[in-house]
Amino acid sequence: MSYNLLNGKKGIIFGALDSKSIAWKIAEKAHDEGAVFTLSNTPVALRFGEIQLLSEKCNAEVIPADATNVSDLEKVFTRTMELFGGKIDFVLHSIGMSMNVRKGRDYDDLDYDFFLKTIDVSALSFHKMLQVARKLDAINDWGSVLALSYIAAQRTLVGYNDMADAKALLESIARSFGYIYGRDKHIRINTISQSPTRTTAGSAIKGMDGLVDFTDRMSPLGNATAEECADFSIVLFSDLSRKVTMQNIYHDGGFSSMAMSLRAMTQYNKSLDEQS
Amino acid sequence: MSYNLLNGKKGIIFGALDSKSIAWKIAEKAHDEGAVFTLSNTPVALRFGEIQLLSEKCNAEVIPADATNVSDLEKVFTRTMELFGGKIDFVLHSIGMSMNVRKGRDYDDLDYDFFLKTIDVSALSFHKMLQVARKLDAINDWGSVLALSYIAAQRTLVGYNDMADAKALLESIARSFGYIYGRDKHIRINTISQSPTRTTAGSAIKGMDGLVDFTDRMSPLGNATAEECADFSIVLFSDLSRKVTMQNIYHDGGFSSMAMSLRAMTQYNKSLDEQS
Amino acid sequence: MSYNLLNGKKGIIFGALDSKSIAWKIAEKAHDEGAVFTLSNTPVALRFGEIQLLSEKCNAEVIPADATNVSDLEKVFTRTMELFGGKIDFVLHSIGMSMNVRKGRDYDDLDYDFFLKTIDVSALSFHKMLQVARKLDAINDWGSVLALSYIAAQRTLVGYNDMADAKALLESIARSFGYIYGRDKHIRINTISQSPTRTTAGSAIKGMDGLVDFTDRMSPLGNATAEECADFSIVLFSDLSRKVTMQNIYHDGGFSSMAMSLRAMTQYNKSLDEQS
Amino acid sequence: MSYNLLNGKKGIIFGALDSKSIAWKIAEKAHDEGAVFTLSNTPVALRFGEIQLLSEKCNAEVIPADATNVSDLEKVFTRTMELFGGKIDFVLHSIGMSMNVRKGRDYDDLDYDFFLKTIDVSALSFHKMLQVARKLDAINDWGSVLALSYIAAQRTLVGYNDMADAKALLESIARSFGYIYGRDKHIRINTISQSPTRTTAGSAIKGMDGLVDFTDRMSPLGNATAEECADFSIVLFSDLSRKVTMQNIYHDGGFSSMAMSLRAMTQYNKSLDEQS
Repeated sequence: MSYNLLNGKKGIIFGALDSKSIAWKIAEKAHDEGAVFTLSNTPVALRFGEIQLLSEKCNAEVIPADATNVSDLEKVFTRTMELFGGKIDFVLHSIGMSMNVRKGRDYDDLDYDFFLKTIDVSALSFHKMLQVARKLDAINDWGSVLALSYIAAQRTLVGYNDMADAKALLESIARSFGYIYGRDKHIRINTISQSPTRTTAGSAIKGMDGLVDFTDRMSPLGNATAEECADFSIVLFSDLSRKVTMQNIYHDGGFSSMAMSLRAMTQYNKSLDEQS
Repeated sequence: MSYNLLNGKKGIIFGALDSKSIAWKIAEKAHDEGAVFTLSNTPVALRFGEIQLLSEKCNAEVIPADATNVSDLEKVFTRTMELFGGKIDFVLHSIGMSMNVRKGRDYDDLDYDFFLKTIDVSALSFHKMLQVARKLDAINDWGSVLALSYIAAQRTLVGYNDMADAKALLESIARSFGYIYGRDKHIRINTISQSPTRTTAGSAIKGMDGLVDFTDRMSPLGNATAEECADFSIVLFSDLSRKVTMQNIYHDGGFSSMAMSLRAMTQYNKSLDEQS
Repeated sequence: MSYNLLNGKKGIIFGALDSKSIAWKIAEKAHDEGAVFTLSNTPVALRFGEIQLLSEKCNAEVIPADATNVSDLEKVFTRTMELFGGKIDFVLHSIGMSMNVRKGRDYDDLDYDFFLKTIDVSALSFHKMLQVARKLDAINDWGSVLALSYIAAQRTLVGYNDMADAKALLESIARSFGYIYGRDKHIRINTISQSPTRTTAGSAIKGMDGLVDFTDRMSPLGNATAEECADFSIVLFSDLSRKVTMQNIYHDGGFSSMAMSLRAMTQYNKSLDEQS
Repeated sequence: MSYNLLNGKKGIIFGALDSKSIAWKIAEKAHDEGAVFTLSNTPVALRFGEIQLLSEKCNAEVIPADATNVSDLEKVFTRTMELFGGKIDFVLHSIGMSMNVRKGRDYDDLDYDFFLKTIDVSALSFHKMLQVARKLDAINDWGSVLALSYIAAQRTLVGYNDMADAKALLESIARSFGYIYGRDKHIRINTISQSPTRTTAGSAIKGMDGLVDFTDRMSPLGNATAEECADFSIVLFSDLSRKVTMQNIYHDGGFSSMAMSLRAMTQYNKSLDEQS
C-alpha cells in the first residue's frame, strides 16, 4: 500500500547492508512512496551485502563511500545531485560500528583507537555528511535528515559498550546541526530511537536474545520491527512533519516510558520462584 | 493535497471551537485525508463557536458533551459507534481551561476549586474519555488517541499558571493509560507538545505576544502553526506510527531543544544596548 | 555522626508515620544535624502511628493537620513560627495516598472521587502548603522545600496506578511554585525521586516484592534505603545546595539511568531457561 | 565555615587553572572540609596558571599530566596513592577545550582534527581517568567521581559549538562507566550541569555577556557562582550522596526548568518596544 507521501522527493540512503537492515526497509518503503534516491555504503559492505538486489528493486544507483571520509561523501552528494538534476530532499544515516564490541573489549578495558573509530564511524560521520551537504548546498529548503539511534544514548545497557556513547554523541550532533540547518535553510534533523532489532549488525551485541525478550514484554505494543521503523521514517521525510526538528523520537512500542510491565514482572518473578 | 492517509478511519474530535482552533484544523485535515468522525464540544462552546460551519464542511455530526461528565462521554462514544456502525480508530483531545488564568489569580494565590476544575477539564477529562472508550470497547485494535499539550508541562513559563500542572498531569495520564490500552488492545496514546498558538483559548494567556515573538526567534524553524500541527496529528492517527506510544512529541520548530539562538540573542541584546 | 549541617535551622516535617517512614528517618537525621522542627500528620495517622516516640526523641512538637485543609496548614505554620520565634528554613512533604490503590481499582476502572482525593492528598497538598507559607511569609530567604517523589512520574509501573499521575503533578507543582518562590524569596523547591522503599505506605503497592528485587538488581548501587534518602534530604535542606531548584533528583542507586544490567538480565534469563 | 564533610577523604582534582576556575573553588572548599588531595593540570596550564598559590594554600602536590595521555594519568593516580598511602575517595574532572571555538570555526565548518581533539580533551579524558583508576584499583568502595558539564549537552546554544557534543559525550561516559564502577565497586559517577560561569575558559565563548545576563534573568535564583558550585560538589564527594549515581544534576538557579520568566520577558520586551 502506498500513499505517495514522497512523490517527487529525492534522497540518499546510507547504511543498507542486507534485507534485515532497517535502512533496507526504509529504502523499499521510500521507493513505494514515490521517492527516488541513491544508496551508499562502504566498499566492503557492498561486497558482502546484497545491496545489488535492493538497487534493482528500487532502481537506485549504489555509490560506494566510507562515511568517515569527507571526499567520499562529497562524491555521494555530487553524484546524487547530478543524477537527479538538482538538490535533494532527504538523507538517512543508519551507520554504526564498534570494534570494541566486535573484539569483546569490556567498557572498563576499552581500546582508545577503537573508541575513536566508534565515534568517527557511528557519530562523526553524521556531522561530516551534514557539513558536506551544507557546503555543497545539496539539500532543498524544508528537507529532512534522519539518523537511527537507540535508547542506550539515555540509559545504560550491559554489553552495548561504547556504542551507547556514540549514540549520545549522534543525537547531540542532530541537535547542534539541527539548529544551524534549521535556521539557515529550514532543514530539519531528527533521530529515531528504535527498539532493539535483529539486524546483522545488532546481532553482534552480547545477550541480544534475552534483551529482546525482555524489551518485548516491557513494551505495551511489543518491540517495533524494522518495517514499522521504515513506516515512521517515511513520515519524517514527508511534508507532514515539517516543524519537528532537533528531536529524538522513540519508536519502541512504549518501552522508553515503562519502568515495569505486568508481562515482564510476571516473567521475572518466575526466576524468583525457581529459587525458592 | 491529500494522501488518503486516513481512508476508512473513523474517529471523534473533541475541542474544535472556531477556525483558529487546532482541533478545527485537525478536523479539516482528517476529512481531507479520508476519515469520517464526529465532533464534540461543550454546549456553551457550541453556542458561541462556529462549529456548524465545520460540521457541514466535514459532514460530521456534532455531539454536545461536557468532557468532565462520564455519562455525556458515554453518549458521544455510543452515538459515534452507532453512526459509523462499529468501533472507531482515533480520538483527539484538545481541551483546556483554567478559571485561575481567566480570573487573573496568581500562582501563589490560587483558588483551589478553580484548580480542581482546571485539572478536571484539562487533564482528568482525558482519563474519563479513555476509560469510557475502554469500557465500551469503542476503539479498534491499533487505534490511536492523541491529546494536545504544551512545553509548560516540563518547563515553567510566567503566566501559564495552573495550566502547566494540568498539562503535566495530562501527559502522565497518556503514559499511564497508554500502558494499559497498549497491552490490552494495541491502542496507542500520545501527546503533541505544540508551539504557542494564537487560538481563541491561547489568547487568554497574559503576555502572549512577547512570548510568541521570543519562541519564534528561538526556534530554528520558527513557531509551528495550527495547520502544521494538524499535519503531524494526522500522521499519529495513521498506520505509519503504530509503534509510537506513551510519548510526548515536540512539534515546535525546535524550541524545546534550544537554550539560546542567534536571533533571540540578537534581539535580546538590543534591550541591553538601550540601557547603556 | 553529625556534621551540624542544619545548625540553627528550623523546619516542619510532614508525613512521618512510623519508624519505617522516610520522613521519620529525615526527622531523626535533621535532629542529629542540629535542626529544630515540628512534626505534622493527620489526626488518624497520629493515633495509629508511633509519632510520640519520634516527638520525644527529637524534642519536636506534633501538630495534627489534614494537609488538604488550608486552615489546618495555616495552624501548622503559625504554631511553628510561634514556637521558634520567627520564620522557618525548611519544609518536608512526604504525603501520598490513593484510595484507588487501596480499594484495588484498576487504572482503567478508576473511581473519580478517589482520583481527585489522590490528587488532593498527594499533590495539591504540596501547593496548599506552599501557598500558605507564602501568604504567611513563613519561610526565610534561601529556605528549602522538599517533596518525595517516585520514578512513576516519568515511567509507568504496573500497579502504581493513579499515584503515578499524582507524582507527576507533584513534580510539576515543585517547578511551578519553585519559579515563584525562587524569584520572590530565593526559596528553592525540589523533589527527590527515591528507590521503592518498604514503608508502611509502600507496602500497599501490589507486587512490591518482585519489583524491589528487580530494581535492586537493575541499580548498580542497589536500591537506596530510607536512611540514605534522609542523608541526601539533609543536603537539600543545607546551605550547600542553595542554587539547586525546580529539580527532581534521582536518589535510586542509578536505576533511572539503566535500561538493563547484567544482574537483572542474568536473573531474568533464568526465567527463560526454565521454560525451555 | 566548615562541616568537616570530607574528613579523612583523599582525592585528585583535575583542571584548576586560576582563581576563577570552578576546580580551584572546589579545591579550596574540599580543603576547608578536611580533604587531602593532589592537583593536576597540563604542563602548559601549570606554567601559565597560578596553581602554585593553590598548592600552597591547600598543601596539595601538583602533578602535571596531559589528561588525554593514559600513561600520564597512571602517574597521577600512582603518585597520589603513594603520597596518601593507599586508595583515594574522590576525583574531579573539570576539563574542556575546543580548538574549533578558539579558532572561530562555525559549527557547519568544523575542522575534524580539532573536533576529535575536543572530544579527546573534554570527554574521552574522563573515560581514560576512570579506566586508569579502575585498572589500578585506585578508588575506595563508595568513592565518588564528578565531572562538570553544561546544559548545552541537552539544549543548543549559539556559539557553544562542538563543546556541546563533547558535553553530551561526557555525560554519557558518566552513565556508562557509572554502571560498571557502581556494580563492581559501589563507586558513583555524576556530572553537575552548572550555570554559565565567567572562568578564564568560559570567556572564550562568543557572546558570553548577553547570555549570562539572559540566563541570570531566566533563573529564579539567578546564575550559580563558582563558589556555590563548589559547595554542591563537596556534597557529591561526601557520604551524604552515596546512592546518587549516573545522574546529571542541574546546579543552575533553576534555569533548566524554565521556559520563560517575568524578568527575562520584561527585558526582552524592551527590545520589541524600541522597534515600534
